[in-house]
Amino acid sequence: MTHSSSSALAALGEFGLISRIAAGVSTHQSVMTGIGDDAAVTALSAGMQLLSSTDMLLEDVHFRRVWHDPYRLGRKSLAVSISDIAAMGGIPRWALLSLAIPSDLPLCFVDEFMHGFLAMASENRVALIGGDTCLSRSGLTISVTVMGEQNPDLIVRRSGALPDDDIWVTGTLGDAALGLKLLESGFGSAQPPNSAQPTGGSLSGVEGDDYLFSRLLDPNPQVAVALALAEAGAVTAMIDVSDGILADYGHIAEQSGVGGCIRLENLPLSPAFRRQTADLSAIPYHLALSGGEDYELCFTADRSNREKIIDCMKKSGIAVTRIGIVSSSPGVSAVSPDGTPYRAQIKGFNHFT
Amino acid sequence: MTHSSSSALAALGEFGLISRIAAGVSTHQSVMTGIGDDAAVTALSAGMQLLSSTDMLLEDVHFRRVWHDPYRLGRKSLAVSISDIAAMGGIPRWALLSLAIPSDLPLCFVDEFMHGFLAMASENRVALIGGDTCLSRSGLTISVTVMGEQNPDLIVRRSGALPDDDIWVTGTLGDAALGLKLLESGFGSAQPPNSAQPTGGSLSGVEGDDYLFSRLLDPNPQVAVALALAEAGAVTAMIDVSDGILADYGHIAEQSGVGGCIRLENLPLSPAFRRQTADLSAIPYHLALSGGEDYELCFTADRSNREKIIDCMKKSGIAVTRIGIVSSSPGVSAVSPDGTPYRAQIKGFNHFT
Repeated sequence: MTHSSSSALAALGEFGLISRIAAGVSTHQSVMTGIGDDAAVTALSAGMQLLSSTDMLLEDVHFRRVWHDPYRLGRKSLAVSISDIAAMGGIPRWALLSLAIPSDLPLCFVDEFMHGFLAMASENRVALIGGDTCLSRSGLTISVTVMGEQNPDLIVRRSGALPDDDIWVTGTLGDAALGLKLLESGFGSAQPPNSAQPTGGSLSGVEGDDYLFSRLLDPNPQVAVALALAEAGAVTAMIDVSDGILADYGHIAEQSGVGGCIRLENLPLSPAFRRQTADLSAIPYHLALSGGEDYELCFTADRSNREKIIDCMKKSGIAVTRIGIVSSSPGVSAVSPDGTPYRAQIKGFNHFT
Repeated sequence: MTHSSSSALAALGEFGLISRIAAGVSTHQSVMTGIGDDAAVTALSAGMQLLSSTDMLLEDVHFRRVWHDPYRLGRKSLAVSISDIAAMGGIPRWALLSLAIPSDLPLCFVDEFMHGFLAMASENRVALIGGDTCLSRSGLTISVTVMGEQNPDLIVRRSGALPDDDIWVTGTLGDAALGLKLLESGFGSAQPPNSAQPTGGSLSGVEGDDYLFSRLLDPNPQVAVALALAEAGAVTAMIDVSDGILADYGHIAEQSGVGGCIRLENLPLSPAFRRQTADLSAIPYHLALSGGEDYELCFTADRSNREKIIDCMKKSGIAVTRIGIVSSSPGVSAVSPDGTPYRAQIKGFNHFT
């Protein structure tokens, strides 16, 4: 696949680019007016409240073009905001996308990015309804807003955790952080399989580095299990794990006025993570605790709801693991298998510091 | 006022900055959950549909720090998206704000920016409910999403203009474009009055360059008149004038399947515009037609609604002017006072070209 020359973007112009993007967008009955007016017009379902979240992704801060192929970058740009709606137990519905595009970016890159973005949208029944495009004088900048809805009684906040609740997490932790470490250290090839063709999850096997790279480059927001948990009324608090479970459970603890203890031996680690780290003298728990970019869900629930939660897991096909207990005293600790406190080496990702 | 050192931002950290911003935000009864959870939760009024629009502002593309003091930059960042909601006849309600901040930006700049942003929010009864902050490796990048609501029957789109409708515009045109020209040419002082203190419209007199600079640096979204027009059911199509009236009326014409003729002698020009351009051999109509950043409203209405529209003008205190007529044949033309077609020198602002 040859990349179009950079002049293709200039020839197309701002409104040509918007038309090109709009042409690939499918309609949805909740969208009264989509791309092409001053604002989008959408209709919430009866009795629903609005959920909204926004994320900005900057080149060389959140992604590198040498690692992130445009298709998966498009998917991930939407996935991270869908993950926020999911963490409230919400149903993601509509997205706004702003792109600041360097003049030397091939039009083909934009096309593949949009292909990935719209594939993630379609998988989650999210409609792209508007946005903004402009020229960037530095790197590619992506800003995504996702709006969703939910019955007010089913919305799950960070603030509801209670002492003695179980602390749960979906999927496995640390894969994305280990994938990033491998990329940064130039492990194997200097860059991951970077296909100009849609990869659509072809790297999602559980074998080898590809799985770890895929977890970093193509995270999957846990919408189905979040909805099942919210609808079952089974959870007291929920958050998506983007900065590492220690930091993110820390937000639940802080906003709920509680503490918690996480047992390291209970942290769900993937076979790929275990295999890649088998030669180390100790399991690098800090990657699972504080590595970031897991895009799993951490939630708390009364012990009496364990069966309900296992049912939700079966319904959604997503593994969930009990990793600790909410405490009434403040402070979040991680305890090693030998019972001693684990001193985390990293506190979770934090911009500016 | 001294600027804090750049290390202040690092010392504060991402979550400290978010807390600092959140501390200045006032609550609103429609906001169930604001800043601090995975997503914001808000409630639309009964029977309303959701309006949403997003804009990205990049340093050295959309603004220059030497010209745009942080207070007015904060105001403008929100104003441009509120203007989009107004152009639909909508009631602006909630905003999301993302900031990518260079490490050398003084914390004081962020504080003043937020002061301006929240002043604009307060003036328009908009609640800041969430956002994202990160470190930028290049300039300051601002992304704003504004959501609003309106009764579906009152929402005004670009697509409803009918042949023989009047074409109207609020306020005056070309001021911001002339202000920019003056700044670019180093007219008077090389930079406009750039106060570290809130200016709050103190430059909004109709005398001198200050008025032109103020129109560029501190535009005022025309929410009140837009709402009055929508509620009166008086208009067939509406758009906000951000790229110049020729280009923006062109969007109405295109989406309505009509054309139009704009009479230059009817274009509303401010006293400051006329005075600043009095020495030129001809009035620089291209600034009023295609200069951009007017943030006025262009709308179309049946001739029978002229009185209604004048009433709306009186209600909102905003001048409105009839500048032309919608035609059934496609194409938008501007006609000189002598009846000859005016050849616009600039087609309106368009990124990438």
